[in-house]
Amino acid sequence: MADSGVSRQLARFVTGSRWQDIPEETRRQASLAVLNVAATGLAGARDVALRRLGAALAPFSGPATSTVIGAKDRRDAPTAAFLNAAAMNVHDFDDTHEGTIIHPSAPVAAALMAVAETMPMTGADFLHAFVLGTEVECRIGNAISPGHYDRGWHITSTCGVFGAAVAVGTLLRLDEDQVLSALGNASAQAGGLVETLGFMAKSISVGNAARNGLLSALMAKAGVEGPPRPLEGPRGFLTVSADTVDLDALTRDLGITFELSRNALKLYPCGVVLMPVIDACLALRDQVDPAAIDSVVITGHPLLKARTDRPAIVTGREAQVSAQHAAAASLLRGSAGLDDFSDAAVNDPAVASLRARVQPVAVDPACPVERAEVLVRLADGRECRHAIDAARGSLANPATVEDIERKFRTLAAWGCPDVNAERALQTAHALEHLDDAADLPRALKPAR
Amino acid sequence: MADSGVSRQLARFVTGSRWQDIPEETRRQASLAVLNVAATGLAGARDVALRRLGAALAPFSGPATSTVIGAKDRRDAPTAAFLNAAAMNVHDFDDTHEGTIIHPSAPVAAALMAVAETMPMTGADFLHAFVLGTEVECRIGNAISPGHYDRGWHITSTCGVFGAAVAVGTLLRLDEDQVLSALGNASAQAGGLVETLGFMAKSISVGNAARNGLLSALMAKAGVEGPPRPLEGPRGFLTVSADTVDLDALTRDLGITFELSRNALKLYPCGVVLMPVIDACLALRDQVDPAAIDSVVITGHPLLKARTDRPAIVTGREAQVSAQHAAAASLLRGSAGLDDFSDAAVNDPAVASLRARVQPVAVDPACPVERAEVLVRLADGRECRHAIDAARGSLANPATVEDIERKFRTLAAWGCPDVNAERALQTAHALEHLDDAADLPRALKPAR
Repeated sequence: MADSGVSRQLARFVTGSRWQDIPEETRRQASLAVLNVAATGLAGARDVALRRLGAALAPFSGPATSTVIGAKDRRDAPTAAFLNAAAMNVHDFDDTHEGTIIHPSAPVAAALMAVAETMPMTGADFLHAFVLGTEVECRIGNAISPGHYDRGWHITSTCGVFGAAVAVGTLLRLDEDQVLSALGNASAQAGGLVETLGFMAKSISVGNAARNGLLSALMAKAGVEGPPRPLEGPRGFLTVSADTVDLDALTRDLGITFELSRNALKLYPCGVVLMPVIDACLALRDQVDPAAIDSVVITGHPLLKARTDRPAIVTGREAQVSAQHAAAASLLRGSAGLDDFSDAAVNDPAVASLRARVQPVAVDPACPVERAEVLVRLADGRECRHAIDAARGSLANPATVEDIERKFRTLAAWGCPDVNAERALQTAHALEHLDDAADLPRALKPAR
Repeated sequence: MADSGVSRQLARFVTGSRWQDIPEETRRQASLAVLNVAATGLAGARDVALRRLGAALAPFSGPATSTVIGAKDRRDAPTAAFLNAAAMNVHDFDDTHEGTIIHPSAPVAAALMAVAETMPMTGADFLHAFVLGTEVECRIGNAISPGHYDRGWHITSTCGVFGAAVAVGTLLRLDEDQVLSALGNASAQAGGLVETLGFMAKSISVGNAARNGLLSALMAKAGVEGPPRPLEGPRGFLTVSADTVDLDALTRDLGITFELSRNALKLYPCGVVLMPVIDACLALRDQVDPAAIDSVVITGHPLLKARTDRPAIVTGREAQVSAQHAAAASLLRGSAGLDDFSDAAVNDPAVASLRARVQPVAVDPACPVERAEVLVRLADGRECRHAIDAARGSLANPATVEDIERKFRTLAAWGCPDVNAERALQTAHALEHLDDAADLPRALKPAR
């Protein structure tokens, strides 16, 4: 029976959901996830890729309704959605959904922020739409993981377009058939390749996820119809883009468990396996004088070595996946922020000198993937060691509200010093209770 | 060596090509292909999908530089490119590239027409860019056919974005590195599913191919960089979207043979295997009184039966793949145009009555796929038969200039009676010699 298709079941779930159905814990996670991408958006706004994308799109914006984070000039909603999603994700410093490695918030939050300035919407409306968008996005990802990403699809982009479509569709109060069409319209626009990671072109597909998801919902509202089974049909998104599909993952415990509970908010702008290494180094720095360090030994899971044993690097981008750099920079500088993974930090002679004394990553096959140990040998022969079982910002040791507030202040100052960070922070914190959700994007506009 | 990658070889071919290098035959084919999609664009402009897509996009257009075929109001270039490509293709009445079944012209011509009204460009510039765009588009399709489409990717959309990127990049005079980035930016945006065929959502991916291809080139010009091997890289477009890749197809005889030589221009708005059936019926109609027909027998290749043996239909869309309908309508009405494959034609009692007397398609395993035979049995016992070895509009019996002129006049009157069809036809014919290529899109705007 056509009615029983998973695409329609998702549409029915979305149209049937009420804000009061969303567990308190999920609401809190949604709120913090939005604050987190507001922070990474403020940092990303300064990136050269964003400047160039913004310049290319500038001539093609309709009436300027919607804030572009950190910019004086507004753009039309689809263009603002594109640029803000790209900015939120450009440093890969946003959030990560366990199992799929989707960065779920950027496409969804950016689409919602853009629409918030075009129609009445409370903060609770915004967060409800955000929860539903990320839920559908991550469940689609669950159904095709890990094969879809392994094949080469940039899953944040390919699944993000569905999340943005559902989120905006919720705000537009689409009915069940229209949400189904929004999913179908999104299926026609899903794209993005792993091959582009590390290049500016990556940000195009992330921006498109927000922009095209938003348009998918608006087109559905205008009567543009999609196929009845855009996800599970014989040539639908799931089948076409993955070799193995777990259909049940789309609807198992739908409305009971929420995928935001599996969403980790990063505290360091580098590969996730490096997180415990950095935590250990920052802890050791309280005990040792960096100038007295002779050599450093990092021990961890085989994946740590496979992904990050990279002593000879020349760019900030490489630094993001270098255990030697992460250890040297955090031990020497006592921090692990965007400036510590920059080209300049890589080429800082003091960092380079210590990096050269960080030995090849040692493997302990019995070590869980979440754990790492750092041993520091001092010139006087003493040794200090520190082990971390679950890094800050991991699911087992999640980032706190205070962590994300600190991240917000740091990234705002780094990326958009003209934005009133304290006001923006207060607005984001109050989101659930705002009468007008547009206060959030407006607070991310420079004050002068 | 990085330099030898096929993506870079294509970029080098594109930047090195000169109009005088293009064979006269290819120029003529390009010119006729553009005229043909101008015709199908005039018909498609009237479609309900176009009206709805146009309404959804209307609020988000920047300065209105570019003609939307058949519309009084211009839109910005990306929006016009989107809508015109969708209109040109919405009836699947445009052109078909043999082997890939790409409809090559719509995404490329629509992107070029939109840009023509924003910068100085001669008609020869336009046609040169069109030849290069369709060449790269179809070669990419060759490399992944038939697996890519069989898997479920709507190849017109997925490959069209590369064609539009190359075509617009040519006009922008991008250098080799920039064309490579334009291909990379396009790779991040390739999408579109076979599942959406038969639904309005199909037109979104075709529109995106033009729009996003255009933006891929503009972004490359603004400095947005893509990966060095967007096509052939380990997670590049070819590998990710097809299970078998013929890399050599991208560069074999590049610049010597042109894919436009394998591009057929349709004369009937229905499945390509029905073409010889219609030609046979139109020929028989000169010999028999339709009212005297008792029954009809169609004999052809097994594919004809597999695709079109469909006696019981209720919609115009189904009629496009019904041999019974194609025979009945063309025998009775003496024509095979959009009106003959409409819902109304399907429900015309006279057509329905004759359709019921067209027998199940007979198979002759020895019959070539291009051939069909129609036998008409009259009430008085007489029989007439007519066989067609290569239908009009096939590669073996290509549409003539006069055929496409007739198609243009018919479709203009059908879709956009307010457009001055004769002036538009003259302008399109003169394209190669126009000082300003923008005269072509302008001629497709209503005169009043």
